[in-house]
Amino acid sequence: MKKLVYLATPSNIEGNKEMKDTLGGKGANLQEMLSLQLRVPPAVTLATETCNMYYEAGRTITPELREEFLGCFTVVESDMDLKFGDIENPLLVSVRSGAKFSMPGMMDTILNVGMNDAIVETVAARTNNARFAWDCYRRLIQMYGNVVHEMKTEEGSPFEAILEEIKQTLCITDDTQLSVENLQELVSLYKTCFRRFTGEDFPQDPYAQLFNCIEAVYRSWNGERAILYRTMESIPHNIGTAVNVQAMVFGNMGDTSMTGVGFTRNSNTGENIFFGEYLTNAQGEDVVAGTRTPIPIQQLKNEMPEVYEELLTTGKKLEDHYSDMMDVEFTVQQTILWWLQCRVGKRTGFAAMQIAIDLVREGKITIEEALLRINAEDHLNQVLKPIFDTEEKKKAKAEKRFVVKALNGSPGAATGQVVFFSDDAVEQKKQGNSVVLLRHDTNPDDFKGMVAAEAVVSGKGGATCHALVVARGKGLIAAAGIETLRIDYKNRTATIGTIVIKEGDWISVDGTSGEIFLGKIKTMPSEIQQVLVTKTMKPEESTTYQNFAIIMEWAKERKTLQVKANADNASEASIALAFGAEGIGLYRTEHTIADDASISSYRKAWLCGDKKMRILYLNEMLEYQTKNLAETLEEMDGMPVLMRTVDSPIHEFFPEHHDEKTLSMMAKLAEELGVSVDEVQARVKSLMPVNSNSAMRGCRITIVYPEILVMQITASAQAVHRCIEKGLNPNLGIMIPNAFDAREIVWHRHQVETIIAKYEQDHGVTIPYHFAAMLENVAFGRTLPETVAKAKCKIFSVGSNDYTSDVLFMSREDANSFIPTYLELGILKADPFVEIHPTVDTMLNDSIGKLMSEDEEVEGGVCGEHGGNPPSIIAFHKMGMKSISCSGFRIPIAILGAAQAAILHPKVK
Amino acid sequence: MKKLVYLATPSNIEGNKEMKDTLGGKGANLQEMLSLQLRVPPAVTLATETCNMYYEAGRTITPELREEFLGCFTVVESDMDLKFGDIENPLLVSVRSGAKFSMPGMMDTILNVGMNDAIVETVAARTNNARFAWDCYRRLIQMYGNVVHEMKTEEGSPFEAILEEIKQTLCITDDTQLSVENLQELVSLYKTCFRRFTGEDFPQDPYAQLFNCIEAVYRSWNGERAILYRTMESIPHNIGTAVNVQAMVFGNMGDTSMTGVGFTRNSNTGENIFFGEYLTNAQGEDVVAGTRTPIPIQQLKNEMPEVYEELLTTGKKLEDHYSDMMDVEFTVQQTILWWLQCRVGKRTGFAAMQIAIDLVREGKITIEEALLRINAEDHLNQVLKPIFDTEEKKKAKAEKRFVVKALNGSPGAATGQVVFFSDDAVEQKKQGNSVVLLRHDTNPDDFKGMVAAEAVVSGKGGATCHALVVARGKGLIAAAGIETLRIDYKNRTATIGTIVIKEGDWISVDGTSGEIFLGKIKTMPSEIQQVLVTKTMKPEESTTYQNFAIIMEWAKERKTLQVKANADNASEASIALAFGAEGIGLYRTEHTIADDASISSYRKAWLCGDKKMRILYLNEMLEYQTKNLAETLEEMDGMPVLMRTVDSPIHEFFPEHHDEKTLSMMAKLAEELGVSVDEVQARVKSLMPVNSNSAMRGCRITIVYPEILVMQITASAQAVHRCIEKGLNPNLGIMIPNAFDAREIVWHRHQVETIIAKYEQDHGVTIPYHFAAMLENVAFGRTLPETVAKAKCKIFSVGSNDYTSDVLFMSREDANSFIPTYLELGILKADPFVEIHPTVDTMLNDSIGKLMSEDEEVEGGVCGEHGGNPPSIIAFHKMGMKSISCSGFRIPIAILGAAQAAILHPKVK
Repeated sequence: MKKLVYLATPSNIEGNKEMKDTLGGKGANLQEMLSLQLRVPPAVTLATETCNMYYEAGRTITPELREEFLGCFTVVESDMDLKFGDIENPLLVSVRSGAKFSMPGMMDTILNVGMNDAIVETVAARTNNARFAWDCYRRLIQMYGNVVHEMKTEEGSPFEAILEEIKQTLCITDDTQLSVENLQELVSLYKTCFRRFTGEDFPQDPYAQLFNCIEAVYRSWNGERAILYRTMESIPHNIGTAVNVQAMVFGNMGDTSMTGVGFTRNSNTGENIFFGEYLTNAQGEDVVAGTRTPIPIQQLKNEMPEVYEELLTTGKKLEDHYSDMMDVEFTVQQTILWWLQCRVGKRTGFAAMQIAIDLVREGKITIEEALLRINAEDHLNQVLKPIFDTEEKKKAKAEKRFVVKALNGSPGAATGQVVFFSDDAVEQKKQGNSVVLLRHDTNPDDFKGMVAAEAVVSGKGGATCHALVVARGKGLIAAAGIETLRIDYKNRTATIGTIVIKEGDWISVDGTSGEIFLGKIKTMPSEIQQVLVTKTMKPEESTTYQNFAIIMEWAKERKTLQVKANADNASEASIALAFGAEGIGLYRTEHTIADDASISSYRKAWLCGDKKMRILYLNEMLEYQTKNLAETLEEMDGMPVLMRTVDSPIHEFFPEHHDEKTLSMMAKLAEELGVSVDEVQARVKSLMPVNSNSAMRGCRITIVYPEILVMQITASAQAVHRCIEKGLNPNLGIMIPNAFDAREIVWHRHQVETIIAKYEQDHGVTIPYHFAAMLENVAFGRTLPETVAKAKCKIFSVGSNDYTSDVLFMSREDANSFIPTYLELGILKADPFVEIHPTVDTMLNDSIGKLMSEDEEVEGGVCGEHGGNPPSIIAFHKMGMKSISCSGFRIPIAILGAAQAAILHPKVK
Repeated sequence: MKKLVYLATPSNIEGNKEMKDTLGGKGANLQEMLSLQLRVPPAVTLATETCNMYYEAGRTITPELREEFLGCFTVVESDMDLKFGDIENPLLVSVRSGAKFSMPGMMDTILNVGMNDAIVETVAARTNNARFAWDCYRRLIQMYGNVVHEMKTEEGSPFEAILEEIKQTLCITDDTQLSVENLQELVSLYKTCFRRFTGEDFPQDPYAQLFNCIEAVYRSWNGERAILYRTMESIPHNIGTAVNVQAMVFGNMGDTSMTGVGFTRNSNTGENIFFGEYLTNAQGEDVVAGTRTPIPIQQLKNEMPEVYEELLTTGKKLEDHYSDMMDVEFTVQQTILWWLQCRVGKRTGFAAMQIAIDLVREGKITIEEALLRINAEDHLNQVLKPIFDTEEKKKAKAEKRFVVKALNGSPGAATGQVVFFSDDAVEQKKQGNSVVLLRHDTNPDDFKGMVAAEAVVSGKGGATCHALVVARGKGLIAAAGIETLRIDYKNRTATIGTIVIKEGDWISVDGTSGEIFLGKIKTMPSEIQQVLVTKTMKPEESTTYQNFAIIMEWAKERKTLQVKANADNASEASIALAFGAEGIGLYRTEHTIADDASISSYRKAWLCGDKKMRILYLNEMLEYQTKNLAETLEEMDGMPVLMRTVDSPIHEFFPEHHDEKTLSMMAKLAEELGVSVDEVQARVKSLMPVNSNSAMRGCRITIVYPEILVMQITASAQAVHRCIEKGLNPNLGIMIPNAFDAREIVWHRHQVETIIAKYEQDHGVTIPYHFAAMLENVAFGRTLPETVAKAKCKIFSVGSNDYTSDVLFMSREDANSFIPTYLELGILKADPFVEIHPTVDTMLNDSIGKLMSEDEEVEGGVCGEHGGNPPSIIAFHKMGMKSISCSGFRIPIAILGAAQAAILHPKVK
């Protein structure tokens, strides 16, 4: 007979982490921890196949399976020296689902199963904590009711409503303020509610509870959302879910019990010292949720030296096994250390660099592994983030705006308006406002709000509390542990000592130092930027910079993609060079046009309605266009600079709002054009598009108004000419945007050649240049081979923003109205304007990717936002792109991303 | 030695119409006419290969070629009994290019080659028409200068400038008003200009003229625009152009000479009678351009009975050879009939139907051929066009608004504001105004203006003049031949008798009767519509209807595509049925929403910002949505009705302009919502998209606001339910628009099933329906197989407008700003929103086309505008579509288009 039930106890290790198909994710990990000889609470796992058996048997657990399970379950009991349902020595268990993939709508966990009216008294006595026992009991009834009987009304959970009512009656806001008597009343009310809803009493038989929970897990496999999710994700419906039944242990059984969390190194700085906190006589949740401020782990050395020693030794062992810094959760129940969880630890960007470099030095990992350990996006972003200006901070202190020094949770500097609820943070972010989320404590439900806020401040919690762990991992800015913080959520005000902070007040949070200030404080560049760009710091003064430099050097040696910058003038080019750019992949001529020196001429060129006049106005712009490009070519001397001819739709050069400034601008234009203001306004209006991103733009402009192309190409020739005269080596590319057909590029190539030839003839000089086209249009992607053949164009740069807009027919400017819902439902896995969408990836592979594999001379690059997004960079690397281009400040991210791509996919040439 | 020079004389027919590679298009047709024993002026064709030889020899005509040409040329001379360059009996010739493909920038024609100071006198004497001779001479100098010496300044042709100046001095507006003396002065001025420009005298040696012209043809092959065009069109550069040198004949050599044009049947009605006109002692151009009003051909019977007889006999012979009505041009030079041109004749839709039916009855063509002879677009459009309301016309006459009865040029009724220039017609059309183009006469340059105008009125010209021939072929409305029309182009006024018409005045043109009225006249439906829809005419009263019915019957028997209608309510459904629709391929729910009964509720649903309130407002719409759909299902009983859930972006339901009406609407909304008007305006503004076509629309709306889907699907279920209760057989499809990913359709399928299941459960009824998705998005096209597999969706309808917008990233609303230029440059061959673009075609073939070929159960259809466009219908037929859907009035066009597709491509299942 096939094995259906697996034990997970020290003497019965029946699996390992590779057995997810049979045991599900959770079950497999339990086995792995045991095989590392960690002391973990014993458990039984019902294999995934039992889920199918449940349905095949007509939604019932067969007597055979029940028997096999109970046989194993007694091993757990004897292992714990407790008995499930026993009034003297009761075993309590958790029941958890354990599918191979986690999916929305699947039941997660029911805790404290095995509790009843009698056993709650035993637990209260044994833990000497009646509050805890009754709280466990009311939670069991609530979870059991919700999950097993789907007790939900249109208003939500009836239990939540009862809890809210009691809290209102007692005028309290926090669950922790409930007394034992309150909780006992709550249990009584919950039971009444349960009876009213289900028509039966809450089951007092622990085994009835247990099997009903197991069945609920099976049923949740075929819940509506789970089925929909599997259909969308192509996950087979017949793989089923496992069920884990695990003994509970308690860190709140008196003074020889405790609970704690920690990291095997400092997750904030990377320093190689065990970094953790604990609470004596407490439950694990208390530490993680930050509801009590815990004690630094080093104090445990005095209180329980043997336990402390075991903790450090086991921690090192774990780190050696995983070759990485580990995040651990543990509970000591009456001097016995239990490991509840271990996983690779989240860390700040600063720590990530330090740990990676140290592990290489310790000989534990290779440089390639080290590079893969750093999150190119979140970690590097964090170390490149601005910090508060030192002088401004001094000023703020002088102005008595300093509030408090909290725990330096997650580094970075931010200013924003205070909100007290995560939903408000999300809402304000949508409206483009900067907010700081201020909470007593945070829990996983606050994640959205934390991400939406500029910074998070949590009153409770130590260095390892939920808020800070999450913040560090995501590179968010955070501070925590403010003993004096009191929040009145109802009236939306907070006090820290005597200082009152209202919703909407501006505050500034220094996550690096933990300092909090009233009002706004100006930021200054990160240390890395101070060394590289502003030169206000020397390399030897900054450990962060030194680590960064090592990582960049390692990455550059390993990447194969060329990393270029999007830069529009010499000063942007200079920053890009400082950060390691190898050229300019996108030089936008629009930015020169929009400068004060040119904008009026360009507007008149569009409004005058006469070709001769238009040429005159365009000629006014020639020198400025030339100068800006010449300076950029000089700054980048020898490196490629890819200049894009005008792309932006004309409406972008006219202000949207008709305020006074606009009206006076219009009046001036009218005067200069010799027409009425009404006429100017009518002409401007006639130029406004309905769908700007797919209207008159890109090469459509230069085809309809070739005189604009003449001006821009002449300026380019002049710029190159000036560089040559200075003895420089200009390396210019001329790139045509937004074509949908090879014919447009043929036409442009012909025009560009003619204009350059004329310039060369007029000035007796040879103007070297490359010719390129942007790939931003689906139809154009289909005609690339024709473009190569007819326009002799071999350089293509993907404008990935527009290409994404086109493939998905999704306006970037409007996508915020539906993308959040799409992400929530799983229709999108990521914002397609941040991370390249799978269909966009496929289509690029089919067009430019295919072309590059067939024609070695074709050079593909990317110059949209995705060029600086690490997951997208991997996609571009795999399709054989030669270069990526992004904004100057993202260059380090792109370099590391490119190195990771090369390490992960070495076979791509 | 390979033959390089081809004779084309009665006794030397050296080719046929299949030899376009060697002889070019023109040369091959010359041979064909000769082989039909038509008397055509003899010619010599230099083969296309000679063009390459010219370049290979260093841009010179080799002595061998020259010799071979001259050898042949003497045959032409002796055939005409004239001698080139001879002072007594001079032969004049035309020189024309003759490439296999016509291309922009290629030289077309130089006439009258062989004329000089001496010969002009001979010609004047021999034709007894000094004006003609001198006019020929000045034209030769002008054409020769332009073509051989590229005499162009920035202001255009210097010759045109001289002509303009002389006309201004003489205060005349028309070239025909120039006297012999004026023309002689013009020739003198032209020669001076020629000398100043070229540094040499206009060549008096006819052979020098001739060979220079031939070389100019060769050189034009490598003109800039011709090269660019060939590159774009993938036409090889080495195929070269042929050169045709043809003897000229003159219809203006006295009273036994004449020139004429005609049709072998009546091109207006299709009646089987030779239909033509002539002018005695005139040049061909005079008839075609309509500069003199010609005489009906029947009068020739009296004047030159033998010629008349020959004309009819040869005409019939031509018709028999081509099995079609022919358009002929002929010249009688001193009693000898010469055929200058013959081609299949353009005709009105009325004539096209009549001739096709008659030819079938005469046993000359098959029904399939007959169906191919009718232009599904232009011809059927014409017979379906509205005509003037009889009562209104009577009223206009009573009000003395009748102006004149002109020739009934091209049928149909139109009203518009008068313009006198084609450019103005184009400009006004762009601004959405209806205009009537009023001209003395029209020439090919007026084509754009004629197409832009609602109707064309030409003062000069008979039934076969340029204006009317073009108008009839394109289904435009036209009248001509108003002797009393005088136009003052300068002051932009016209008089017809005593009636003065100014630019901007409204006039009404009845192209069917030729009547012209001042002011506007209401139109009434076409005869076909009166029979089928309004039932105000009986079938037996209308020959047009009877012919139409025969054609439709033939077409329906042969087509394989199902032809459905886009219809949004029972009354549109009824019209569609009358025109032969086999179902509704697109039922847009927006139109019911936009009705007065619903719009306010819908607006409030979007503005209230609260889900509960939104559901309440949506429920207000339920009954009206139900009723409208139920009525439509009843009208279409048994036939498929494909209902699309809401697609339009929300801004379409709010007016754009803030006029008083809008403001009062906003105020009312504000009151009902209980918020301020400012708040309403702010909320409306927040709903306005930047790129409406790719923003919040289609299924994005129903995903983010599923309550809208609940309302629409519940309404659908109710509508089906009501039909079932009436004992009807409702055949509903529920179609989800604008998805980009299979997941969106999976989600919708699930929701729709749930909502329908709930309805079925609540009402104890089974609601039959099909489930469909629209293909309008490039990314969605890539995930169709996934959609079939996961959403069990097998019906797809292409929304070809949006799909085109997406493939080409081209906003339909904005495309007018560049499409004209794109068409002119040949980047686009047709407006992609009218005729399916080749890349769109390819991509549809690759997605839905491929899917249909792999999965027989998949049904593809089209419901965008292209569904009623005949060339697009052929593309859809070829890719295996099952149905097309278009507006009710285009159903006949789609039926004929589908029949033609099936006849041309019978192998597609």
